[in-house]
Amino acid sequence: MKAEIITIGDELLIGQVIDTNSAWIAEQLNMKGIKVHQITSISDDREHILETLREAETRAEIILITGGLGPTKDDITKSTLCEYFETNLVFNQETYNNVEALFKLRGYPVTELNRRQAEVPANCTPIQNRNGTAPGMWFERNEKTFVSMPGVPFEMKTMMTEQVLPKLAAKLNLGFIVHKTILTQGVGESFLAKTIEDWEDALPKNVKLAYLPQPGMVRLRLSAFGNDKTELSGLIEEQHQKLLKIVPGYIFGYDDETLESVVGKLLKKLKMTVATAESCTGGYIAHLITSVPGSSEYFMGSVVAYSNRIKQSELGVKAESFEKYGAVSEAVVREMAEGIRRKFGTDFSVSTSGIAGPDGGTDEKPVGTTWIAVATPEKVVSKKFLLGEHRGRNIHKAALAALNMLRVELLEMQAKSGL
Amino acid sequence: MKAEIITIGDELLIGQVIDTNSAWIAEQLNMKGIKVHQITSISDDREHILETLREAETRAEIILITGGLGPTKDDITKSTLCEYFETNLVFNQETYNNVEALFKLRGYPVTELNRRQAEVPANCTPIQNRNGTAPGMWFERNEKTFVSMPGVPFEMKTMMTEQVLPKLAAKLNLGFIVHKTILTQGVGESFLAKTIEDWEDALPKNVKLAYLPQPGMVRLRLSAFGNDKTELSGLIEEQHQKLLKIVPGYIFGYDDETLESVVGKLLKKLKMTVATAESCTGGYIAHLITSVPGSSEYFMGSVVAYSNRIKQSELGVKAESFEKYGAVSEAVVREMAEGIRRKFGTDFSVSTSGIAGPDGGTDEKPVGTTWIAVATPEKVVSKKFLLGEHRGRNIHKAALAALNMLRVELLEMQAKSGL
Repeated sequence: MKAEIITIGDELLIGQVIDTNSAWIAEQLNMKGIKVHQITSISDDREHILETLREAETRAEIILITGGLGPTKDDITKSTLCEYFETNLVFNQETYNNVEALFKLRGYPVTELNRRQAEVPANCTPIQNRNGTAPGMWFERNEKTFVSMPGVPFEMKTMMTEQVLPKLAAKLNLGFIVHKTILTQGVGESFLAKTIEDWEDALPKNVKLAYLPQPGMVRLRLSAFGNDKTELSGLIEEQHQKLLKIVPGYIFGYDDETLESVVGKLLKKLKMTVATAESCTGGYIAHLITSVPGSSEYFMGSVVAYSNRIKQSELGVKAESFEKYGAVSEAVVREMAEGIRRKFGTDFSVSTSGIAGPDGGTDEKPVGTTWIAVATPEKVVSKKFLLGEHRGRNIHKAALAALNMLRVELLEMQAKSGL
Repeated sequence: MKAEIITIGDELLIGQVIDTNSAWIAEQLNMKGIKVHQITSISDDREHILETLREAETRAEIILITGGLGPTKDDITKSTLCEYFETNLVFNQETYNNVEALFKLRGYPVTELNRRQAEVPANCTPIQNRNGTAPGMWFERNEKTFVSMPGVPFEMKTMMTEQVLPKLAAKLNLGFIVHKTILTQGVGESFLAKTIEDWEDALPKNVKLAYLPQPGMVRLRLSAFGNDKTELSGLIEEQHQKLLKIVPGYIFGYDDETLESVVGKLLKKLKMTVATAESCTGGYIAHLITSVPGSSEYFMGSVVAYSNRIKQSELGVKAESFEKYGAVSEAVVREMAEGIRRKFGTDFSVSTSGIAGPDGGTDEKPVGTTWIAVATPEKVVSKKFLLGEHRGRNIHKAALAALNMLRVELLEMQAKSGL
C-alpha cells in the first residue's frame, strides 16, 4: 500500500514557508503501516496540479493533498479537483452550517467569499473542518483514494487524526502495528545510543527502534509489526521493561506526553501547587505549564524578573548576592526559588537565571550558562547547565531542564507520601 | 528559467526529518530570479531517483539535488547519478585532499569507506565541501544543469552560497524578481481579501499577490517580475503605498519582522519600558517579547497571575471587581494593567484575562472570551475579543492581539513625541 503526498502553495516554492505538513502526514501514515512513496510540492497552478495528480495516481493508491483551499483567488485546488474528477461544484448544507457556526462563534457575518467555502465537488465526500472554514474532500476513483485537506497545519492535523486516518484504517485491511514512544530528557542522542546498544541489538526481528531527537530531548519509538495486536503489545511492553532497567533516570513519559503534562499530573495527584520565577526563560516555563488544560488547578503564577531590580523587589534576592556572585549564580537562583515559593504560597517552585545570548557572555560565564533551582517543602536543589549559543534553543532547553528537575522532586515527594 | 529541487532520503518519507533544505534553496534561487517549479522528496531508491531525474529534466533547466551522498550503504545517489549520466566513478585527487584535511583536523585516519568519498562521476565537475567529506557534483547535459549536494543543511548551505549560486549566476542571464511581504494583524483573510479586492484586481500584470495566513495574522506577499530591478522595486513600493491607504491600521511590519520585534524597536526608539500582567496567556507574551535579542533593554518583567488571589495580592485587583464582574472582565483587566505598570515602574504595560479553554466557558462568557488592556503613561485602553475554542490557538491569538494593541499605543506615543 503506497501513498503520495502533494503539498500545494506558491509560498512553498519561494521558500517562505517550510513544508512541515508532509513530514507530519508521512509519520502518521507510517505508523499505520502505509508507506509514503513520494512527496511533491507544487505551486497554485492549475495545469501543474493536474499533471501532478495524474502522475501520483500511476504510482500510489492513496494520494493526500494539502493546501490551496482558502477563499482567495490564488487558491485554486478545489476548482482544479473538479476538473480532474470531471464534476462541478455544488452547495453543501452541512459544510455551510459549519462555516456559519464558526463565524457566529467569532461574532462575524458570513461573507459571500466564505459562503463559497461551502461549495464542494459533486462526487466527493466532504470532510468537515472543526477549526476552519475550508472543508476537506474525499474522492474515490479506480480503487484509488484522494483526500484534499487545508494547508493550515492545525486544521489539517485535526482533520487527519479525527477523520481521515480512521477512515483509511477502516477502508484498508492493514496488518497491525503497535507503537510506543518513550520520552527521555537530560541525555544526548549518541550517549543514549551507546548506553542502550546491546538492548537495541537484541530486539526481536519484528520490533523496530527509531531515534527521534528534538531540541532538548530524545524520543525513542518502538514499533512491533504482526497480526496479533495483544501479542504485539506484550512484546513492546517486555522491551520497554528491559529498557527501563538500563536507563531509568532519563525516561520521563510516553507517547503524547510532555514534561509539562507529566509534571501537571504529578501535582494533581499530590494536590500540590507550583509557581515559577524566571529570568532567562522569560515566562516560557509558565507558558509551557499553562498550555496544559486544567493547569489552573496547580499553577498559581509566575514572576518574570528580567531586571535585577525586580529580582530584588519582587523575589527578595539580596543586593549582596548580586554583588558577590552576579545575577547568573547559584545564590541568586536559589533565592529566586525561595522567594517565589514564599510569596505565592506554593508547595513547589522553579527558578532560572542564565545568559540566553547572543550577547552578554563573558569568558567566565559564556552564553548558555544557566542556573536552575527547584524549591520544595523541604529543600532547595540547584544545578548549573552549559547550554548552546542559540538564544531560542537555550530558552527551550533551560525550560525543559527546569521542568525535569521539578519532576524528579515531585517523584520523590510522591514516593514519600506513598501515593 | 525554471528549477526543480529533489531531496533524497528515507528519513524524509517516514517523517523523521522535516525537509528544511528545500525551502532554503527555493528562497535562495528566488532571490536570484530563478523560479522553482517543483520540489520532490523521494527515498534512497535507484529506480525512483532515475525516474524523478528524467521527469524533472523534461520540466526544468536547473535541477538541484540534495541527500544520499554519505559513505554508508543506503546512500546511493552518486552511483545512480553515474548511471543517469552514463559514466563511471573516478578517483579525484582534489576531493581526496579535502577529505584527508578534514580527517586530520578531527584527528582521525582516513578509512577505506571515506576514501571512496573522493570518487566522483567522470563527467562531473566536483564541488568541494568545506564542512564535510561528501563532495558536490555539477553536471551539464543538453543545456540543462544538475547539481548534487549533501543533505546535511550546513554543508549544503555553505556549498550553495560560496560555489553553486555564484556559478549559476555567472552562467545564466536572468531577469529579476522583487518581493515584499506585508504583515497584517487583527483581520481575517477573507475580510482582508474583500477590503483590498479592487486594489488586487488593478495590480499590474507583472505583479503577483499571495495570501500567507498564519495563526493570528495574515501576510501578503507582493512579487514583481521583470528585467529592471530598480523599476520593479518602484512598482512594488507604489502598490504598497496604495495598500497602506486602504488598510493603514492592519499593517504592522514587513518581511521577517514580528509583532514582538516591531514593538521592541518602538520601545528602544522611545527609550521606554514595558511589563506584562498575564492571566490567560500564562507568560506567553513575556516569552514572545524576551525571544527578541536585547529585549532586556526595555522589558522589565511580568507577573503571571493564574489565580485570583495572586491577581489581588500582586496586582492590586479589587475583591469587589471579581465579585461584581468576574475575573474575565474589563474592570479586572484594566486594574491588572494599572497594577503591573505601577508595581514594576514601567512606561507601558499589557494585561490579559480570558477563558483559554477547553473548560471554564459559560453561556455569557464562552471559551475564547478574552479581555486585553494596555496601560500607557496617559491612559488605559481595553478591548474584548472573541477568539476560538482551541486553547493553544487562543493563547497565541490573545498574545498577538495584545502586542498589536501595545504597538498602536507606542505609535501614538511616537507621533506625539515627534521621534
